[in-house]
Amino acid sequence: MSELRLNLATREWIIFATERARRPEEFAAETRPARIREPYSPTCPFCPGNPTAYEADPTLVVPGDDGWAVRVLPNRYPALVSHEPPQRSHRGVFHRHSGFGYHEVIVEHPRHDLSLAEMSVPEVYRVLWAYWKRYQALQADSRVGYVVVFKNHGVTAGTSMEHPHSQLIATPVVPSEIRARMATAMAYYDDSGDCVYCRLLQEELASGERIVRQSESFVAYIPYAAYSPFHIWIFPRRHAASFGECTEPELAELASVLRNVLYKLRHGLNDPDYNLVLRCVPESAHFCQYYHWYLSVVPRLTRPAGFELGSGMFINTALPEESARFLRSQADP
Amino acid sequence: MSELRLNLATREWIIFATERARRPEEFAAETRPARIREPYSPTCPFCPGNPTAYEADPTLVVPGDDGWAVRVLPNRYPALVSHEPPQRSHRGVFHRHSGFGYHEVIVEHPRHDLSLAEMSVPEVYRVLWAYWKRYQALQADSRVGYVVVFKNHGVTAGTSMEHPHSQLIATPVVPSEIRARMATAMAYYDDSGDCVYCRLLQEELASGERIVRQSESFVAYIPYAAYSPFHIWIFPRRHAASFGECTEPELAELASVLRNVLYKLRHGLNDPDYNLVLRCVPESAHFCQYYHWYLSVVPRLTRPAGFELGSGMFINTALPEESARFLRSQADP
Repeated sequence: MSELRLNLATREWIIFATERARRPEEFAAETRPARIREPYSPTCPFCPGNPTAYEADPTLVVPGDDGWAVRVLPNRYPALVSHEPPQRSHRGVFHRHSGFGYHEVIVEHPRHDLSLAEMSVPEVYRVLWAYWKRYQALQADSRVGYVVVFKNHGVTAGTSMEHPHSQLIATPVVPSEIRARMATAMAYYDDSGDCVYCRLLQEELASGERIVRQSESFVAYIPYAAYSPFHIWIFPRRHAASFGECTEPELAELASVLRNVLYKLRHGLNDPDYNLVLRCVPESAHFCQYYHWYLSVVPRLTRPAGFELGSGMFINTALPEESARFLRSQADP
Repeated sequence: MSELRLNLATREWIIFATERARRPEEFAAETRPARIREPYSPTCPFCPGNPTAYEADPTLVVPGDDGWAVRVLPNRYPALVSHEPPQRSHRGVFHRHSGFGYHEVIVEHPRHDLSLAEMSVPEVYRVLWAYWKRYQALQADSRVGYVVVFKNHGVTAGTSMEHPHSQLIATPVVPSEIRARMATAMAYYDDSGDCVYCRLLQEELASGERIVRQSESFVAYIPYAAYSPFHIWIFPRRHAASFGECTEPELAELASVLRNVLYKLRHGLNDPDYNLVLRCVPESAHFCQYYHWYLSVVPRLTRPAGFELGSGMFINTALPEESARFLRSQADP
């Protein structure tokens, strides 16, 4: 029988449609054939040595053994630009804001063909360290409302470039979804004195059936009310609202857990397309008791359609307990 | 220069990224090649005369000249079922609801190959009439929280069946997105005494530059802060919170406006995949002053990626004014 489950942190109900459910391994068949695997592409603007329209700020380069290891570049087709003054205006009901913001690309590795799942833990650490440094730098600009750190892996996840990279976009406003999540978490805190995310994490640990991977400081699990198949949350055990509060030893642990999760997804489901997303708070709420930062790994195994567009609700065709068991059974890197 | 625009009805900012913007006709190139065009498929469970696992309730059939014209069937793989008693329970933070609800398919036409854009106005009217009748019937069940009426046209819009059809899903809860939209509209009404949607419609009419098509009772336009390229809202001019309050003459007019819009999309952009979605309120708010029902037509011309997942914000690469002008210039059916 189908059932609905509540994501208590956002008050969203997700439909688990068991009539349409598939076994974990059946999701693998839908994924793309093996990707092109060339360590270097002469036409790629991110490959070392190629002429590029991207000017790297030397302060944004993480050095490697031989040249750079990770590079941060301004996006060539930026959604928002930092030289535009932030300005809000309106004519009647039509409110606008100038296109102030930041849009950066983090080139994760000199090699064209290496995905995060295949990198070593120190290599993944350098990528997360670049996220962390740029996150802190952009949040420090008081004109920034919110910083989104994300990665699109594969065409259906929205990438147009093969070379492994992530992106940061800093917006001049706080997105209404983030405001709504904060308000919901704040109300839960008012009612209970607890961070709703800490509470969910405790109960997920007590149940154990949806856990994918644990370390001393991090827990990767498929939440009870996951939006979509194999949607994984990687949570710090220590309460902290902001990714900026992460320590370097914690980042190293996160690199190991993230690499493990991505490796298992890659091998268990035939390299599915996925998005990686950092969930955080605006600068003003960095030290709050009610919110909790985390990473989301969202494989693109199903497609939201008219029902999702019209209701904001999701239909999930994979049971989190089964998907988590499947991933736990996959070999470690 | 990029800019952000506010959807005042939902308090969501949309980024209009002009650095990435394309001219209206450039969106056509991305659409799929011509679809398979057979008026009858021997393997289709929706084609007349074929053996089908679907048992049509005879009260759910709109008769045509020769057999049925529109049929309403229970979904074969329902997300929710009406024979399940509605029941909510929880264990700690894990809240669940039984899979009570309705999931119906509206087969729009006996012909396998005819899309709404190609049907006659009376044929489109029959489809909308079936939406309206089933909407009213499902809303009358007091155990239903919300009714979603939607259509997925084409593979990237999430359909798995070629035969033209729409769907209804009735959920036992009110989706949190709908609650949030209602709360936002209610706050606007408190502050101003106006329905925010009526107000937006007035100002869109006064400006005129984003209007695609008008009739006596309906206005189709691309909103100032459209989420995605060619996202079209079809609004009744008369204030009404519920689609159930639509009259039959109004439905006939809506059929004509909808057909016109879909025809122009089809011919202007090479038959893009799209979703059609009815936006409405729960039964309890049917006669409220602050909400306004409408239809959304959402062509699938771009792909939401990590930024959208991580922030709930959208990046739109088409200016509504240009897209509306392009559609206005297309020939009428």
